[in-house]
Amino acid sequence: MRIPYVKKHAAFSDREVTRWNDILKDWDGAEALIGPVILGVPLSKSSISHSGASFAPHAIRRMLGLYTTYHIEDEKDAADSVLLDCGDIEMHVTNILENHKRIEHAVSLLTERYEKAIPIILGGDHSISFPSISGFAKGRGRVGVIQFDAHHDLRNIEDGGPSNGTPFRNLLEHGVVEGENIIQIGIRNFSNAKAYHAYALAKGVTVYTMKQVRNRAVTDIVQESIEKLRTRVDSIYVSIDMDVLDQACAPGCPAIGPGGLHSRELLEAAALLGKEPLVGAVDIVEIDPTIDFRDMTSRIAAHIVMSFVLERL
Amino acid sequence: MRIPYVKKHAAFSDREVTRWNDILKDWDGAEALIGPVILGVPLSKSSISHSGASFAPHAIRRMLGLYTTYHIEDEKDAADSVLLDCGDIEMHVTNILENHKRIEHAVSLLTERYEKAIPIILGGDHSISFPSISGFAKGRGRVGVIQFDAHHDLRNIEDGGPSNGTPFRNLLEHGVVEGENIIQIGIRNFSNAKAYHAYALAKGVTVYTMKQVRNRAVTDIVQESIEKLRTRVDSIYVSIDMDVLDQACAPGCPAIGPGGLHSRELLEAAALLGKEPLVGAVDIVEIDPTIDFRDMTSRIAAHIVMSFVLERL
Amino acid sequence: MRIPYVKKHAAFSDREVTRWNDILKDWDGAEALIGPVILGVPLSKSSISHSGASFAPHAIRRMLGLYTTYHIEDEKDAADSVLLDCGDIEMHVTNILENHKRIEHAVSLLTERYEKAIPIILGGDHSISFPSISGFAKGRGRVGVIQFDAHHDLRNIEDGGPSNGTPFRNLLEHGVVEGENIIQIGIRNFSNAKAYHAYALAKGVTVYTMKQVRNRAVTDIVQESIEKLRTRVDSIYVSIDMDVLDQACAPGCPAIGPGGLHSRELLEAAALLGKEPLVGAVDIVEIDPTIDFRDMTSRIAAHIVMSFVLERL
Amino acid sequence: MRIPYVKKHAAFSDREVTRWNDILKDWDGAEALIGPVILGVPLSKSSISHSGASFAPHAIRRMLGLYTTYHIEDEKDAADSVLLDCGDIEMHVTNILENHKRIEHAVSLLTERYEKAIPIILGGDHSISFPSISGFAKGRGRVGVIQFDAHHDLRNIEDGGPSNGTPFRNLLEHGVVEGENIIQIGIRNFSNAKAYHAYALAKGVTVYTMKQVRNRAVTDIVQESIEKLRTRVDSIYVSIDMDVLDQACAPGCPAIGPGGLHSRELLEAAALLGKEPLVGAVDIVEIDPTIDFRDMTSRIAAHIVMSFVLERL
Amino acid sequence: MRIPYVKKHAAFSDREVTRWNDILKDWDGAEALIGPVILGVPLSKSSISHSGASFAPHAIRRMLGLYTTYHIEDEKDAADSVLLDCGDIEMHVTNILENHKRIEHAVSLLTERYEKAIPIILGGDHSISFPSISGFAKGRGRVGVIQFDAHHDLRNIEDGGPSNGTPFRNLLEHGVVEGENIIQIGIRNFSNAKAYHAYALAKGVTVYTMKQVRNRAVTDIVQESIEKLRTRVDSIYVSIDMDVLDQACAPGCPAIGPGGLHSRELLEAAALLGKEPLVGAVDIVEIDPTIDFRDMTSRIAAHIVMSFVLERL
Amino acid sequence: MRIPYVKKHAAFSDREVTRWNDILKDWDGAEALIGPVILGVPLSKSSISHSGASFAPHAIRRMLGLYTTYHIEDEKDAADSVLLDCGDIEMHVTNILENHKRIEHAVSLLTERYEKAIPIILGGDHSISFPSISGFAKGRGRVGVIQFDAHHDLRNIEDGGPSNGTPFRNLLEHGVVEGENIIQIGIRNFSNAKAYHAYALAKGVTVYTMKQVRNRAVTDIVQESIEKLRTRVDSIYVSIDMDVLDQACAPGCPAIGPGGLHSRELLEAAALLGKEPLVGAVDIVEIDPTIDFRDMTSRIAAHIVMSFVLERL
Ligand SMILES: [Ca+2]
Ligand SMILES: [Ca+2]
Ligand SMILES: [Ca+2]
Ligand SMILES: [Ca+2]
Ligand SMILES: [Ca+2]
Ligand SMILES: [Ca+2]
Ligand SMILES: [Ca+2]
Ligand SMILES: [Ca+2]
Ligand SMILES: [Ca+2]
Ligand SMILES: [Ca+2]
Ligand SMILES: [Ca+2]
Ligand SMILES: [Ca+2]
Repeated sequence: MRIPYVKKHAAFSDREVTRWNDILKDWDGAEALIGPVILGVPLSKSSISHSGASFAPHAIRRMLGLYTTYHIEDEKDAADSVLLDCGDIEMHVTNILENHKRIEHAVSLLTERYEKAIPIILGGDHSISFPSISGFAKGRGRVGVIQFDAHHDLRNIEDGGPSNGTPFRNLLEHGVVEGENIIQIGIRNFSNAKAYHAYALAKGVTVYTMKQVRNRAVTDIVQESIEKLRTRVDSIYVSIDMDVLDQACAPGCPAIGPGGLHSRELLEAAALLGKEPLVGAVDIVEIDPTIDFRDMTSRIAAHIVMSFVLERL
Repeated sequence: MRIPYVKKHAAFSDREVTRWNDILKDWDGAEALIGPVILGVPLSKSSISHSGASFAPHAIRRMLGLYTTYHIEDEKDAADSVLLDCGDIEMHVTNILENHKRIEHAVSLLTERYEKAIPIILGGDHSISFPSISGFAKGRGRVGVIQFDAHHDLRNIEDGGPSNGTPFRNLLEHGVVEGENIIQIGIRNFSNAKAYHAYALAKGVTVYTMKQVRNRAVTDIVQESIEKLRTRVDSIYVSIDMDVLDQACAPGCPAIGPGGLHSRELLEAAALLGKEPLVGAVDIVEIDPTIDFRDMTSRIAAHIVMSFVLERL
Repeated sequence: MRIPYVKKHAAFSDREVTRWNDILKDWDGAEALIGPVILGVPLSKSSISHSGASFAPHAIRRMLGLYTTYHIEDEKDAADSVLLDCGDIEMHVTNILENHKRIEHAVSLLTERYEKAIPIILGGDHSISFPSISGFAKGRGRVGVIQFDAHHDLRNIEDGGPSNGTPFRNLLEHGVVEGENIIQIGIRNFSNAKAYHAYALAKGVTVYTMKQVRNRAVTDIVQESIEKLRTRVDSIYVSIDMDVLDQACAPGCPAIGPGGLHSRELLEAAALLGKEPLVGAVDIVEIDPTIDFRDMTSRIAAHIVMSFVLERL
Repeated sequence: MRIPYVKKHAAFSDREVTRWNDILKDWDGAEALIGPVILGVPLSKSSISHSGASFAPHAIRRMLGLYTTYHIEDEKDAADSVLLDCGDIEMHVTNILENHKRIEHAVSLLTERYEKAIPIILGGDHSISFPSISGFAKGRGRVGVIQFDAHHDLRNIEDGGPSNGTPFRNLLEHGVVEGENIIQIGIRNFSNAKAYHAYALAKGVTVYTMKQVRNRAVTDIVQESIEKLRTRVDSIYVSIDMDVLDQACAPGCPAIGPGGLHSRELLEAAALLGKEPLVGAVDIVEIDPTIDFRDMTSRIAAHIVMSFVLERL
Repeated sequence: MRIPYVKKHAAFSDREVTRWNDILKDWDGAEALIGPVILGVPLSKSSISHSGASFAPHAIRRMLGLYTTYHIEDEKDAADSVLLDCGDIEMHVTNILENHKRIEHAVSLLTERYEKAIPIILGGDHSISFPSISGFAKGRGRVGVIQFDAHHDLRNIEDGGPSNGTPFRNLLEHGVVEGENIIQIGIRNFSNAKAYHAYALAKGVTVYTMKQVRNRAVTDIVQESIEKLRTRVDSIYVSIDMDVLDQACAPGCPAIGPGGLHSRELLEAAALLGKEPLVGAVDIVEIDPTIDFRDMTSRIAAHIVMSFVLERL
Repeated sequence: MRIPYVKKHAAFSDREVTRWNDILKDWDGAEALIGPVILGVPLSKSSISHSGASFAPHAIRRMLGLYTTYHIEDEKDAADSVLLDCGDIEMHVTNILENHKRIEHAVSLLTERYEKAIPIILGGDHSISFPSISGFAKGRGRVGVIQFDAHHDLRNIEDGGPSNGTPFRNLLEHGVVEGENIIQIGIRNFSNAKAYHAYALAKGVTVYTMKQVRNRAVTDIVQESIEKLRTRVDSIYVSIDMDVLDQACAPGCPAIGPGGLHSRELLEAAALLGKEPLVGAVDIVEIDPTIDFRDMTSRIAAHIVMSFVLERL
């Protein structure tokens, strides 16, 4: 017997509306992974400061449930597509290095086995980009990195281990990515040590500070970055630390401050990167939903995912 | 291919621990409903004051996921039981009377068809008890009501319709329950109109004010109430308005105040009612998770469910 | 005997300062209503999602009490004017359709009887615009609508009744306003169903998406909209859903997101509309003060009221 | 013309319900003040620590608007009474001593002129009790003080002036009240300096610490206090610092801590004091609504007012 | 030149008042440690659930700065004593096992070298008690443990490593403490797995559930526990998980719930333990200041410290 | 004996990173004060509305501890500099005029004695600028003022004394600064009385409203202001009321509203003012950390300090 109106999820729905969670489908482990796929990495114990970024994969998915598949400006609709969700990588309670190994292993397997998959990796703090890019490099060959961030994340490893301050240092020291193939966009005043700027330059890393972002369209910088990497690498991994945004737009990152990008600029960059076939993976990191206001920062993350994915479905 | 450690719900679990959501199972519509079953009623537009009590069924279920099945004081464990969850009754966006009809219809069908089912109804505001008890009466015959509440909820219907101020008035006026079969426990100073106290007494309703609760053990009052109803009714419906609790214990109800029950007293009452075979249904209402602190009030609601259910599984 | 310094409202006041609540005067029911007048519509039970927009009329009035009557940029002062406040329309507790009837009735009476009155209607959720514009049309003839909104609000009526998702659908289906006389400004990506965009276009509704807003000055779009309507209608009703603003500016709307208007743009539009004699009514909707931060969104609403009204007093 | 349903305060009301704000009436300056009358003292700049206690008179009045006049335990109703509200004493922005003078002057005038008035004084921080009791003594002769407080409030005046740490010291040093006529109830561990305990004892102040409150019924202590003062004074002034309550009951005081009274105990004391004709004034102080949770502390204050007043109307 | 009134910490001070931070003195590494000394352990990455307990040592110290040294009930004053603060143990960012080693090493050195020192260890999550008690055992011989907790904390180690769910399991498995020498007080319903209760009993651990606490005075249970251990051990280590308290008293623990101890009971237990010479160390764990309300839970912790220390100075 | 890893401040540090609090050094009273020095003025009882601005000096210093000394855009580093912190001016608890005298005295002594010192004064509410500029004028001669503010702050003194609404009125009335030497930037609509605008113009004060700021680069206005003052004054005092910013950027000021400066504009102005040798003092006022979100407003204040100071070290 069915009791009328009694159902598991008894929420209002409009017959004409498709939301992103309607096209999100749990991966069954058998389907081929082609194009964008979601992978959560709920790790933030590796963060230097207290961080609840481990809640972000869940928060971003919830936000995807609030927005529709229709992009009215371009009159494109993702309603008939499927976006596979691989789920989250399970984290050990007390062994952070083990967690990094799991991330590398999972991303390498995924990208090796499914060469057309484009993992959209939802962190987590920024430490996850080291194992994630390492795994991606195993699967896809020479990797270029476009990093949006207020910070270099090139700290020495000795002082605190592989934290959210060190992912790109680790990549360089382990030879996973060459300095010339790392491009940092949005680096900000009073947010970095001089020694790490010097290190970046010494390693050949390209650094676009906020001054350059203010003086040029961010889409120009992104396009220039893609062109630089085009002949040098097999695939581009985009790593988006949400603290590249101004605190007024993205109040939910641990290391907020004034002087950053406007959300509109970052969304334009995401759409542009979505159009570029060389881009093979994206991660979005450093959102701590426990300190955010009304999930504003996760809402922007969802818009990045939607803007990027729409170009690829 | 399965990617190691990647799973849908990648949370820590301890092999020895069973939580209440582990034994909660979605009802498939085919299984017989026997003993306690969960039914959510996410309605609070019927509330006189602004209320987010429609979020409570979800909040209470989340809280059930935090607590284990083991009752150490009595050394009883519900780990091997199954607690069926019928889901929620879907609510219309703009038609509140229609929603009341859906509630009555669902509860009457459920209790008629499954005569051994004991619905644990998670409101919602208190308006739901009118259709819910009406449906229950259709299914089960003469009904006695034990209501925990700071308020009579016997307002006239003319001024605002079937709101959370009127459920027991509606039951009396529609002849669903006789006044002699309604027992109100915890009625509080400065929280009721004199006219409604008079109305209660005129209708034969039994009223235990907080003075009586302070002077006697609440379990004595409950036992006395059961005995009074034992020969008069076919089944007892327990309706728990969480604002019967003192505001220091239950900060998440719309109409909080000092001078109420301690949570310990209410939990003892719930366990006692759980032991009584005559009790055929329970509702828990008036929790607004959007104004609570750390879901304290939903946590107590979960403990009421657990304490009650454990006696019946 | 007067006791020195004892008074009803014992707040600091500066002899030179006039605030908007000093010129707000409760309408006595006898005075003629000419020019802008305030009317509150505290209804949000009609909202699809949980909403405390019913608190907004009170919140916006409180905010009006914080700002002075002097517009320094134009050196205009409203200090010697009177802004009549009709009060709020009383809402039934449990009958939402009845509430819509009350709104239509009140607005039609007001605008019919006082042909020079310009009601500034403080919602409430967006559902109120259907009865409000219907009443306005009864009073004033052919109506043109300029709607600021991230959303079309053209949902089908079947799925949830006359909610905050359907006001303009209802107007079209009931023939209150022709599609060609509805202009929507600020419609946003991932916030609408393709079917409703198609419906808008099929009905002749003019749609300015955020892309157009980004590429042109919003004042140009507003001027173009006025010119389009000038020869087609007797009066223009402006409906401002505050979620047309970017979430960083207006955090207190239920359906927030990135990618919207800046408050500065909306205030310029309000001033421009204030200068246009064809504009005969304004509503401001979808502010939920219970989820706002420091009443920021209500503060912007107050600035819209002040900017508009100043041009008309 | 009256527009149907449009009214200034369009809130739901139930014809049978009388709330305390329904019987609160603004004093017109001409009516005799007899029995309990409300007087607000919105001063907290005199507080040692940052305090928003100046908002408490308004908050407590709002809370009185939430509760009914009917005391069900004793079956007494205040519905047909009138409770006059004298309003607030206006405070100067930058001159705190001037504010104390205004308080003394207002209370002395009020109590002199209206010998049967019982002012219920809503603070403000505890500094107001010095001028308030001074004014009261001018109006009524020899004064006894029953102070509920975690703290002696007998600090030296030199270090910070007449702050909320010094009211009873000031009374003693100015000879307004004799030490033998001050009774302090609820004084708590780790909340006072030894020197001030010694000072209290040297001055003949009676001190009941929490240990005595724990070991005896608080009503016994209150009765004993009244009897002690009965032959010594013309009138008793009751001063209730809400931080006498345990922090779990009253989270909204600046100086909270564990180990205090339960709200139930304080309400019983208030009712007992209400029955005593010798009690001629009450103040309630140290509630900071800006740091409270859901106005819990103001709700208890409202219950103190209601419990006290009900005995005197 | 000194500029009048300009100072580093320009806060109000009262010449007669001594607060606990006035007698707290940073240990210089040379002074002998005798009697109670403070040691902070800011580790909570070891927690199963997200926890900011690493902020608790700082929060509790701040709270010590709010309370005076005078215990009015017993008329004892600690104003002339010195309470040495050893500081915090520095934690590695990404290596949790290393952190546990540091804790064990520091506590063993401290207790070995200073045989009369009584470390008051401010956690941190409960995982710290394993290394802390291990270090204590190295310094002091056979250890008895009195644990206040809603939970056994006897989880298996395999599933998540040495987390806050396992400290006492680890102690038993490593033979640091015998089961007969562990006494658990306050163990609660629906908060533990049956298997771990069985494990506790099998190991000879004494378990007092909340039922026993409700039926007896907690001080009786504590006295009985001390007597049991007196002949069996060289020293007692008291481990206080603040979630042993009812959620209404201690809202700032990660695993809150109803049905726990009242703060008054725990403070009485602390004072009793302070009197007992056999008690050689205390830890206070599981306070997460980021989710607390007005530091209520840290305030109780400060009162535990003060009540305990006062008996030993 | 040193116990390994035990230290007073056991926080993670990176050997390459210098933060601003690393170069902040408490002034010993003997060192010469040259260039920028910090001085806190924790006064906000002088505020018309309730304000916790007295907490801002501490909050801004905390924020300085979060940012590094390296300005990547200009590749300048302050790591080898020292920024002396004079501490705070101690405030009397109940005597506000006395506090103003202390401020004037301290600033006059400081600037007289150390003619090359540039005090960076951290308020406090805006009332402090009257005594602060008065003291500065005593030390340095003819003073020009560049004030960033939404408000004139030229209220009459009679109505409330020397509050945060009157500092520049007081300066004019006491002849401390000539009207022609006061320049106000960012004055906003609906935030001022017409009479005070007239007063400003009558006194020769230069007023740049937000309209002018919108139409020109703020740096142009600042440069024009400096040039105007260059020949007229001996030194410029910059007074930054943070409510000159738009509420979306600076949510933590008491008098927020839409329509203000973007933080980026204010930071550019601060850097420009830092380059100008004529600028001899800066104050930053009207931040109330108790109502801010994540210290956003204090973070911007810290960036103002850093941007200004970097040009002068
Ligand atoms: Ca970053
Ligand atoms: Ca980063
Ligand atoms: Ca109730
Ligand atoms: Ca009820
Ligand atoms: Ca809308
Ligand atoms: Ca909308
Ligand atoms: Ca006190
Ligand atoms: Ca006091
Ligand atoms: Ca525990
Ligand atoms: Ca534990
Ligand atoms: Ca200002
Ligand atoms: Ca100002």
